[in-house]
Amino acid sequence: MAQMNKQVLLARRPQGWVGEGNFNIVETPIPAPKEGEFLVRNLYLSLDPYMRARMNDTKSYVAPVAIGGVMAGETVGEVVESKHPAFKPGDTVTAYTGWQLYGISDGQRVRKVDPKLVPPSYYLGVVGMPGVTAWVGLLDIGQPKPGETVVVAAASGAVGGVVGQLAKMKGCRAVGIAGGKAKCDYVVQALGFDACVDHRAGDFYDRLSAATPKGIDVYFENVGGKILDDVLRRVNPFARIPLCGLISQYNATEPYGVKNIAALLFNRVTLRGFIVSDHLDRWPTALAELAQGVAQGTIQYRETVTEGLENAPRAFIGLLKGENFGKQVVKLD
Amino acid sequence: MAQMNKQVLLARRPQGWVGEGNFNIVETPIPAPKEGEFLVRNLYLSLDPYMRARMNDTKSYVAPVAIGGVMAGETVGEVVESKHPAFKPGDTVTAYTGWQLYGISDGQRVRKVDPKLVPPSYYLGVVGMPGVTAWVGLLDIGQPKPGETVVVAAASGAVGGVVGQLAKMKGCRAVGIAGGKAKCDYVVQALGFDACVDHRAGDFYDRLSAATPKGIDVYFENVGGKILDDVLRRVNPFARIPLCGLISQYNATEPYGVKNIAALLFNRVTLRGFIVSDHLDRWPTALAELAQGVAQGTIQYRETVTEGLENAPRAFIGLLKGENFGKQVVKLD
Repeated sequence: MAQMNKQVLLARRPQGWVGEGNFNIVETPIPAPKEGEFLVRNLYLSLDPYMRARMNDTKSYVAPVAIGGVMAGETVGEVVESKHPAFKPGDTVTAYTGWQLYGISDGQRVRKVDPKLVPPSYYLGVVGMPGVTAWVGLLDIGQPKPGETVVVAAASGAVGGVVGQLAKMKGCRAVGIAGGKAKCDYVVQALGFDACVDHRAGDFYDRLSAATPKGIDVYFENVGGKILDDVLRRVNPFARIPLCGLISQYNATEPYGVKNIAALLFNRVTLRGFIVSDHLDRWPTALAELAQGVAQGTIQYRETVTEGLENAPRAFIGLLKGENFGKQVVKLD
Repeated sequence: MAQMNKQVLLARRPQGWVGEGNFNIVETPIPAPKEGEFLVRNLYLSLDPYMRARMNDTKSYVAPVAIGGVMAGETVGEVVESKHPAFKPGDTVTAYTGWQLYGISDGQRVRKVDPKLVPPSYYLGVVGMPGVTAWVGLLDIGQPKPGETVVVAAASGAVGGVVGQLAKMKGCRAVGIAGGKAKCDYVVQALGFDACVDHRAGDFYDRLSAATPKGIDVYFENVGGKILDDVLRRVNPFARIPLCGLISQYNATEPYGVKNIAALLFNRVTLRGFIVSDHLDRWPTALAELAQGVAQGTIQYRETVTEGLENAPRAFIGLLKGENFGKQVVKLD
C-alpha cells in the first residue's frame, strides 16, 4: 500500500484540444474515512469521452470539474477501510472516486462487483456504464427489429462494440463506423459486425451507402459532425437515432453545422439524446445480461490498458483522438 | 358553372426560390367521373409550406409533382356529379384534387364536411390538416405538462396559431415566434399567447431568452435554420421538439448547418419528425375538438384569402416569404 495518494487535477480549462498542460499531478495524504464513508484503493480508472465535457465550464448534464479539483471518473477498486455499514475491507467496488489512487466514498453510485465472474476492469466497460449505455441506447431507445440495419459510430469502442453485438443478437444487420483499417477489421472479424466503414478513408458516403443497401433504421450516435450529416442521407422512414455522444465535437472550438436536418422531418425520424444515469431502473437487467454474455463468450470485449495514473492524461488525449482500441482503462496498482 | 377547367401545372422545378415562372396555368375540359369516382367543383384551395418540397425531385415522404402535372394540394368543394356510392351531388368535401377548379376523386383521403358548422375553408385549416398537425404534434409528440413553456415558430400561421392556443388550454406558458410586429401583436392579443418574439428584429436570442425565463420544454418546429439553433440554446432537460416543418430551408440552395446539436445530448431532448398523415387514427378526436373549439369561440382563427386560381402562384410565393397572415387559402368559385 502506497504511503501517499496521487491525484490528477484539472489545472486549466482547455480551449479546443486538450493537452497535458490542462492537468496537474499531485501527491497528497491518503484520506481517512469518516462515519458513513469508506476508503477505496483503486485498481483501474475508466477513461471515457464524457470527461471532456466536464472539463468545460458550460451547461451540461453534470456540473463541471472545478479548477484544481480531482478529475471526475469511475474507478474499480478494493475497500481498504470502512466506517460504512454496507461495505467492508476486501469488497471490490466501482465508485466515482475520480482520477486518483485512493478515494473516499459514501456509498452513493457504488456497485459491489464480483472480481471472479469477469476481470475487475470489465466493470468499468462492458459490464458497467459503457455496456449499459449500449444496452439502453440500442434496445430501449433504438428499438431494433429483426432485419433492420443498425449503424453505430465508434464501433470499436467500449460502447460501439457492444451495440453492434447486441444488434446482431436481435437479428439486425450491424454496420460499424471506425477510424482505420485495423479497427474496421477487428469490428468485422472479432466482433462479428456485417460490415464496417472506415471514416478516415475517402468516399465515406459512398462506402456507407454500399454497406447499408437497405438504408439505416437505427443509428447509434456517439461521434457527430460530418459523419452524422452523411448518415442522415441514408436514414429510412421512422428511423431512430439514440444520441449518446458527440466525440468529434468535444474539442471543436466551432461546432460542425449539421445540414441534413430535413431528413429527420421527411423520414419522421426520432432522435433522442440520452444519458445512461437517467435509466437506473434498467441497469440490473442490462448488467446481468452483459455479464452473462461476457462470461459465456457471446459478447467479445477488448481493452487498451495504460499503466500508471501519471499516464492517464496522455491516454485520455489519445482516447479523444481515437488512438485507443476498445475500452480505455488505466491500471493503477 | 364554368365551361372549362383551369389548372396550375408545375412548369419547371425551382432552384432556390420559387418564381411564377415555375408554374403554368392552362385551361382544359372539365373531366367526367368514371365508375367509382365523382367530380368536385372546388371552392377553396389550401396553400401550405409542404408544397414547396413536392416541387423538388428529391426524396421526401411523398412523390414529387411531375413536370407538367397539376400542383398537388387539398381543396374544399362541392360534389357536382357522382358515380361513387358514398358521395352525391351537393355534398361538401375536402379532397386532394390539386390546384384546379374541378377535380376527380375516387374517395381516397376525402372527408365529408358540414359547411354550416364552420365556413368551408376552415376545413382546410383549423378544422383540417393544419389544425390536426398542431394537435398531434403538440399533444401526442410534445406532451406538454401544466406550467411548462411551449415555444412555437411561425406562430401566426395556420399551424402555429393553433399550437399556442392548445398549449394555453393545457396550462402552459405559450411563446410564439413570428416575423414582424403586426404578427407578434396578433399572436399575443388575438390568440392569447403569453409572449411573441419577432425574429426579424435584432437580438433574437436575447429576446427569446427574456420570453422564456424558465427555458423551453416543448419547441414546435416548423421553421428551422438559425431560429432552431437559437432555440436549442434554451431547451430544458427532457425537452421535446416535434419537428413539423422547415420553411426557412425549403428555398435554400445550401441548407443552414445547425450547430447546437450538443444541446440535444446534454439535455436529453427528444426531437421527432412527424407527418400528420401518419396519424390517421388521431384525426377524428382532433377534428372534433378543433371544430368544437372554433364553434364555441375558444379557438381563434384567421385566414388570408386570395381571389382566383390564377393568383395561387403569387400567393404561394408570398406564403413562403411569410407575407400571409394566418392560414392562406385561394377562393376559386
